[in-house]
Amino acid sequence: MGTLEGHLLPGIGFLIYSVYYSVLISLALLRGEKALQHPLLPRKLRGHRLFQQVSYEAVTKVVVPTLGILGEYFYPLGVNRLQMIDWTDPRRPFIFKDNWQHVTMFGFFILSGVADMVSQSHLPRWGVKLERAAEALAFYVLVLLMATHIENKNSLEIRVHLLLMLPSFLLAVVLTVEVWIPNNPSIWLLKSWLGMVLSNWMMQLCEMYVPPTGQPWRADNPTDLAFLTIFFCWHLALAAGMVIAIYGLCSLWHCYYSSWTKTPGAKYQRCPMASSEELEKLKAEALAQDGGV
Amino acid sequence: MGTLEGHLLPGIGFLIYSVYYSVLISLALLRGEKALQHPLLPRKLRGHRLFQQVSYEAVTKVVVPTLGILGEYFYPLGVNRLQMIDWTDPRRPFIFKDNWQHVTMFGFFILSGVADMVSQSHLPRWGVKLERAAEALAFYVLVLLMATHIENKNSLEIRVHLLLMLPSFLLAVVLTVEVWIPNNPSIWLLKSWLGMVLSNWMMQLCEMYVPPTGQPWRADNPTDLAFLTIFFCWHLALAAGMVIAIYGLCSLWHCYYSSWTKTPGAKYQRCPMASSEELEKLKAEALAQDGGV
Amino acid sequence: MGTLEGHLLPGIGFLIYSVYYSVLISLALLRGEKALQHPLLPRKLRGHRLFQQVSYEAVTKVVVPTLGILGEYFYPLGVNRLQMIDWTDPRRPFIFKDNWQHVTMFGFFILSGVADMVSQSHLPRWGVKLERAAEALAFYVLVLLMATHIENKNSLEIRVHLLLMLPSFLLAVVLTVEVWIPNNPSIWLLKSWLGMVLSNWMMQLCEMYVPPTGQPWRADNPTDLAFLTIFFCWHLALAAGMVIAIYGLCSLWHCYYSSWTKTPGAKYQRCPMASSEELEKLKAEALAQDGGV
Amino acid sequence: MGTLEGHLLPGIGFLIYSVYYSVLISLALLRGEKALQHPLLPRKLRGHRLFQQVSYEAVTKVVVPTLGILGEYFYPLGVNRLQMIDWTDPRRPFIFKDNWQHVTMFGFFILSGVADMVSQSHLPRWGVKLERAAEALAFYVLVLLMATHIENKNSLEIRVHLLLMLPSFLLAVVLTVEVWIPNNPSIWLLKSWLGMVLSNWMMQLCEMYVPPTGQPWRADNPTDLAFLTIFFCWHLALAAGMVIAIYGLCSLWHCYYSSWTKTPGAKYQRCPMASSEELEKLKAEALAQDGGV
Repeated sequence: MGTLEGHLLPGIGFLIYSVYYSVLISLALLRGEKALQHPLLPRKLRGHRLFQQVSYEAVTKVVVPTLGILGEYFYPLGVNRLQMIDWTDPRRPFIFKDNWQHVTMFGFFILSGVADMVSQSHLPRWGVKLERAAEALAFYVLVLLMATHIENKNSLEIRVHLLLMLPSFLLAVVLTVEVWIPNNPSIWLLKSWLGMVLSNWMMQLCEMYVPPTGQPWRADNPTDLAFLTIFFCWHLALAAGMVIAIYGLCSLWHCYYSSWTKTPGAKYQRCPMASSEELEKLKAEALAQDGGV
Repeated sequence: MGTLEGHLLPGIGFLIYSVYYSVLISLALLRGEKALQHPLLPRKLRGHRLFQQVSYEAVTKVVVPTLGILGEYFYPLGVNRLQMIDWTDPRRPFIFKDNWQHVTMFGFFILSGVADMVSQSHLPRWGVKLERAAEALAFYVLVLLMATHIENKNSLEIRVHLLLMLPSFLLAVVLTVEVWIPNNPSIWLLKSWLGMVLSNWMMQLCEMYVPPTGQPWRADNPTDLAFLTIFFCWHLALAAGMVIAIYGLCSLWHCYYSSWTKTPGAKYQRCPMASSEELEKLKAEALAQDGGV
Repeated sequence: MGTLEGHLLPGIGFLIYSVYYSVLISLALLRGEKALQHPLLPRKLRGHRLFQQVSYEAVTKVVVPTLGILGEYFYPLGVNRLQMIDWTDPRRPFIFKDNWQHVTMFGFFILSGVADMVSQSHLPRWGVKLERAAEALAFYVLVLLMATHIENKNSLEIRVHLLLMLPSFLLAVVLTVEVWIPNNPSIWLLKSWLGMVLSNWMMQLCEMYVPPTGQPWRADNPTDLAFLTIFFCWHLALAAGMVIAIYGLCSLWHCYYSSWTKTPGAKYQRCPMASSEELEKLKAEALAQDGGV
Repeated sequence: MGTLEGHLLPGIGFLIYSVYYSVLISLALLRGEKALQHPLLPRKLRGHRLFQQVSYEAVTKVVVPTLGILGEYFYPLGVNRLQMIDWTDPRRPFIFKDNWQHVTMFGFFILSGVADMVSQSHLPRWGVKLERAAEALAFYVLVLLMATHIENKNSLEIRVHLLLMLPSFLLAVVLTVEVWIPNNPSIWLLKSWLGMVLSNWMMQLCEMYVPPTGQPWRADNPTDLAFLTIFFCWHLALAAGMVIAIYGLCSLWHCYYSSWTKTPGAKYQRCPMASSEELEKLKAEALAQDGGV
């Protein structure tokens, strides 16, 4: 679409998903779980036979890109772009290039959602690998199409999209690695951070349509291009900060929630630190070192 | 050759091989085998001393590329391209560049077939590594020659061949990894999918010689180039679908075949699910979660 | 800054850090330690609550880049570059591009220092991973900004900075690997060498501002560009020599210090070689081989 | 030097070393050794204190590049190129660019030889890692300098040198991997093959100075460039064939030599096959399969 709305929808989608995923892994880390437990839809909403176990995540992955696809074809209202070849032209040219690119991207995220549903209902053994592979494929397709997307664009757009492709590609690679090395907490955090970078950068793209200075970005200005990369670096730090903040909030919630459920009679109880023993040991070592050196 | 026939032969060859390999790994997965068992030629067809154990696969790898090489040199009939230097010209120029490139590609697949034969007959210990290495080499050579092949071509041909080199190179890398990490079911599936993508894309190339719209693809049109990448992405999903479909069919066949051979008296028996216990466990967990959250 | 001072400050910073790190790992290797022990600040200098354990390293990582940032904004004295947009110009252009790039680089090293402090005081379990990740991020940002930095520069500057990005990127990759594979002595040595290469090359950059021949380097001369790469290769060997020299000095110090502390009465004692047994075995083998072949 | 002699010396050097290394690993594989045993110089030739254990390999690595360096500076006789800056010119330009590049390449191979000597005499524990790292560094430097070497050359020279850089870079990567994963027989074979490819390609370069057709290669002709890549692919197969042939010869020698040394009385004895049991098992399986399918 190349419009503010066209970037806002996937941007907000990625952002919500990244925040959700960060909460999920924070809780998993705090509870010391070995594998991620995706919250499932309540039983009433699920169908009986085919999809006995459907996570919120999978439903969202199917619903949001479907909205995106409908938008590509029929937005603004009254428009119909659901054709690929202009049969009225004797040269039979392809039409609506950008829309079909976006539809393809959305389509692979829907596929990933469907893979999640199938695996959660039917494939306990191979499921997690399939889910990761489908997600990785969606991001590889994103990168591949983005590489075509930026052809014949100006240098500002190329730069913006290259900086979008960077986290997407890394995310795809990390997801591919996860097919073989699942349930690695460091990889969870890396994915969470990369997802946050990606969605923050989508937000930055939206901001560039409505710049706060009132002046548009100029593609022919090297200074503007340089500041784009600087802002990307700041987003890297911002995304790390957001993941840490979410972990901190989850940590607080986990602390009070678990102390409240376990000992309802006690009014206040200090949150137990799992690693306090190791801390003590380190402190002892530090003391010894102070004396020794 | 640069003709429809020149792409159809290797395309169909790759397609048949990919389907065959998908069936092979599907059955291996369903039977829970640790290593792939390549069906061998019947005893009568094999020679006595040198090649005691020859798989259909190895024979095909030798026969089909040999046909391709003969086609390169002597097709259409009456032509003889079996020379490399034009000795009549005082400058001694090289001739039949494209044919020698294709012959070299075919030649390395023949080498891979010969490596299979030798390893299956004589090298039980080092054999599998040698087979994978020879296959990987064939695909690396494919990529290297393709990179030279696209020089001085138009942008449409370059794009088409780049998208052919991508799965070839990934396949070569995966085969290289398999030299050190053999018998990994996830890698089997990945190879199967990449092979299917490669052969489907060869078919797409053939389609481009006889476009259904009756209009040729135009190299100078960015829209045509963009749709090429879109179609490649669709082929990625199509290939995944084909591998899954083959697995499904093999699963059905495996189910009925094994229930029929084991209990010939019983008229109907539900196919036993290997992972039903785990499914039950997951269901129980889901129930608990529904109640808890 | 693009001046001698602008390269000298980070160059000397990196050099001191590399030497310090080389000493640290040399002693760890000589003592057979499994993990690096970072010397901590004496107790008096540390705050009570928040930062109970602060290493010299972390403090330096915070202090030196802060000086760099102040220099970027306010050096030479009387200048204030602490603004990003020139509000007096109706086009609202970005200004001080290079300074903001340098500030961003310095900022990520400060973040790495803060991560060290937090992890050393509070995170015994996840700490080392966090420290490595923050360091890797700082170097990735360095590479990313350097890539923008060299746009619209002459070929000599591009070459110089590319050869600076090479060890930076490798260092970032190695630090990323260390998140998953910590405490590998070979990786320590590799990091030490790469850091030494990086800082030596920064020194070389400074040298290029004051060439000993009195003649400036010429960007339009291919010979000058070629010699740049030759000198880089010599720096690779020089850095290896420096790491080996530091290891040798530490080895001597470790030898005499440990023999002095253990047996204060003995005047001279040959430094015990940990691997003398293996040496003897090898000698025996060599003798056998001399006789046999 | 850019002459026939300049490529012949390193070419023959690499070739002899590759053949030697192939023999070494073939015997190690046949004898089932876990680590490579480098034949050492006879005791008389070695010095007493410093270098107690010196392999032929290390001596060659020092001697041959030293000859190369002397050739670069003083060949043809009467020439002295041992200066870097032309002090007579007021602009103080660098001179003898190509010679200094070659000297640097040779120098790193000498360093690798010295590292071998030191490690074989003094460092039983860290030695193998150091040797591999020094070799890898030599090849990385080769690639880096080659990348500068091909600047401002014609497309034929660029192509020839790119195809030389490819095996050099892969060799460097494999050697780097060997620092962490030593004594892997598959990696030995890979190194042996890559070394053979590299030295064969150096020979091909020499051939291009004296083409058998009597006509020089033309840089402006795309057909010549295409055939260059085709020949490179053939060299890949040729190198594999050479490694296999060397293994075969060593296998024969090992067979007869070991049967002769063990049972001097017996006139003829069939060479025992280590894997005959597995062969029998495979045959039995094949029989079963023939009957079953």
